[in-house]
Amino acid sequence: MPIPNVDSLSGGSLLLAWQLKDKHVLIIGGGDVASGRIESVLVADARITLISPSQGLHPLTKQFIDATDRITYYDRSFSGPDDLEGVDMVLTAIDDVDESRRICALCRERKIPVNVADIPPSCDFYFGSQIRSGPLQIMISTNGQSPKLANIIRKRIEKCLPEQAGEAIEKVGELRSKLRERAPGVGGQLGKRRMRWMVDVCTSWDLEDLALLDDEMMNKLLDDGWEKNAVPKPEDVGLQHGLLDFHSWTSLETVLPTSLGFLTGVALTVGFLLTRRRS
Amino acid sequence: MPIPNVDSLSGGSLLLAWQLKDKHVLIIGGGDVASGRIESVLVADARITLISPSQGLHPLTKQFIDATDRITYYDRSFSGPDDLEGVDMVLTAIDDVDESRRICALCRERKIPVNVADIPPSCDFYFGSQIRSGPLQIMISTNGQSPKLANIIRKRIEKCLPEQAGEAIEKVGELRSKLRERAPGVGGQLGKRRMRWMVDVCTSWDLEDLALLDDEMMNKLLDDGWEKNAVPKPEDVGLQHGLLDFHSWTSLETVLPTSLGFLTGVALTVGFLLTRRRS
Repeated sequence: MPIPNVDSLSGGSLLLAWQLKDKHVLIIGGGDVASGRIESVLVADARITLISPSQGLHPLTKQFIDATDRITYYDRSFSGPDDLEGVDMVLTAIDDVDESRRICALCRERKIPVNVADIPPSCDFYFGSQIRSGPLQIMISTNGQSPKLANIIRKRIEKCLPEQAGEAIEKVGELRSKLRERAPGVGGQLGKRRMRWMVDVCTSWDLEDLALLDDEMMNKLLDDGWEKNAVPKPEDVGLQHGLLDFHSWTSLETVLPTSLGFLTGVALTVGFLLTRRRS
Repeated sequence: MPIPNVDSLSGGSLLLAWQLKDKHVLIIGGGDVASGRIESVLVADARITLISPSQGLHPLTKQFIDATDRITYYDRSFSGPDDLEGVDMVLTAIDDVDESRRICALCRERKIPVNVADIPPSCDFYFGSQIRSGPLQIMISTNGQSPKLANIIRKRIEKCLPEQAGEAIEKVGELRSKLRERAPGVGGQLGKRRMRWMVDVCTSWDLEDLALLDDEMMNKLLDDGWEKNAVPKPEDVGLQHGLLDFHSWTSLETVLPTSLGFLTGVALTVGFLLTRRRS
C-alpha cells in the first residue's frame, strides 16, 4: 500500500483528545464564550480557576460557579505572572486585545498551552464544533475556514449517529473491564486474544444491541463466548431486540414515503376504476 | 437556559485542534504506529525529526522519509535529553516500556507535550479515530473505552457525510477571502455585517451547492448579494444543479418504500373492489 501524496498532507491541525484529569486550567473572562469553555473543561475533569470581574459574568457562568466546587472564582481582572503559578492550560475570552496578547506571551514564556478567543495567532490550539454522548466525543474542525459549516456538518452527523452510540461504548467498556478481571495481565498472547475477542464482539454485534447489554448478559457472553472462544449472538445471551427492530422499521424516513405511496396507489386505482365504470 | 447537570460533566477529554505549523515534532520509533503519526503530523504542517534504527522501519515510514524533506531522519535509537532540544511535541512508538517511560519523564520535566503509544498514563493527549477531507477534519474519541467502536462509528459518519463537505468548506473559505478583499478591516460594524452575510449564505445554500461555486459565481454572489445586502439563490448566480436534485430525489431509501407502498395500495384496492364486486 503506497502512502498518500505527501503534498496533499497540509493545511490541517493535529486533532487531539487532551487529558486534563486533576489538571489546573485558568480561564480568564466570564462571558458566554467563557461559559462554553467551562463546560468543555469540566467534562475533562479539570480543576478550574476563573478570573473575571463579577459585572462581566454571563448568567451561565454564574450558574456554573454556584453549581460546583471544581471552580475557584476570583472577582477581579488578570493580575500578572503570579496568576499563572501551577497552571497547566490557559483559556482567555476577554475583549481587551492588548491584554490578551500580553497573557499569551506570558504563557508561551512558561510553555503553558494557551487559547486566546478570536486571536488565532495567539492560540496553540483551536476548539472545533463538538458532539458529546456519554464517553463518545466527536469534534468537527474546518481549520478556521467556516465555523458555520462546522455547525451544519455537526447537525448532519448528530442526525445520522445511532442514538445508542454513547451507551454502546459504555457497555463495551464495562464488558472489557469484566474480561480483564477474568483474564488479567498486560500484553503477551493473552492480551492479544483478549483484544481480538473484543473486536470480534464489536464487529459482529450491532451498536443497538451492544447498548442493551446488562450485567447478566455480559456474564453469559463471557461464559459462553470468551471461555469457549466464540461470539454468541445477541439472542443467545437473552437479548430481546424485537422492539428496536420495530423502531428501525418505523422510522419516519421509511413510514412517510411508504404511506404516501400507499395512499397514492389507493387513490389512483379508485380514480381509474371509477372513470372506467362511468365511461 | 439552565446549565447541564454538572455531575454529568465528567469522564471525557478536551478535544482540540492543535496547531503545529512550522513547529518541531520528534517521533521516536519507525513501525506502523509511527507511520500513522507521521501522516497526521504532516497534515498539520509540522517539521518532523524521526529517530529509529533503520531495521525497525515500516515500509510506509520508509516511503514517507523518501517522499518529503519535511522529515529529518536519524538511523539510531533515542540518545537522551539532547534529542529534546528545541522540540515542541514528542510522540513515541517503541516496544521498550521502560525507555518509553524515561522519555516521558524527560518531556514532562521540560513541559513538552508527549504521547507514548500504548501507555495511557504517559500520554498528555490521545489520538482518536479520524476523518479528513480537505480542510474538514473530524475526530471520534471513545475516551479509551473502545477504539474498535470508534472505528465503526467513524465509518457510519463517513457514510452519511455529504461527499462535497470538504469542497464546500474550501469554497466558503475562498468566498470569505474575496469578501474580505472587497470589504477589508478587522472587527466593528463591518466585521459583524460580513460575518452575518456569510452565515446567511451558509444556512440558505445546501452544502452540495456551495461545493459547486466557481470564481465567476462567487463574484456574482458578491455583486448581487453582498453589495445589495441579499442572498441570491444558487440558480441566480448561474449554478446548474439539476443533476444533484435528481440524485437526492431518486435515492433508494425514498424510492423503494414509495414504490412498495404504491404497489401495495394498488393491489389492496383492486383486491378489495374485486371482492366487493363478486359478493
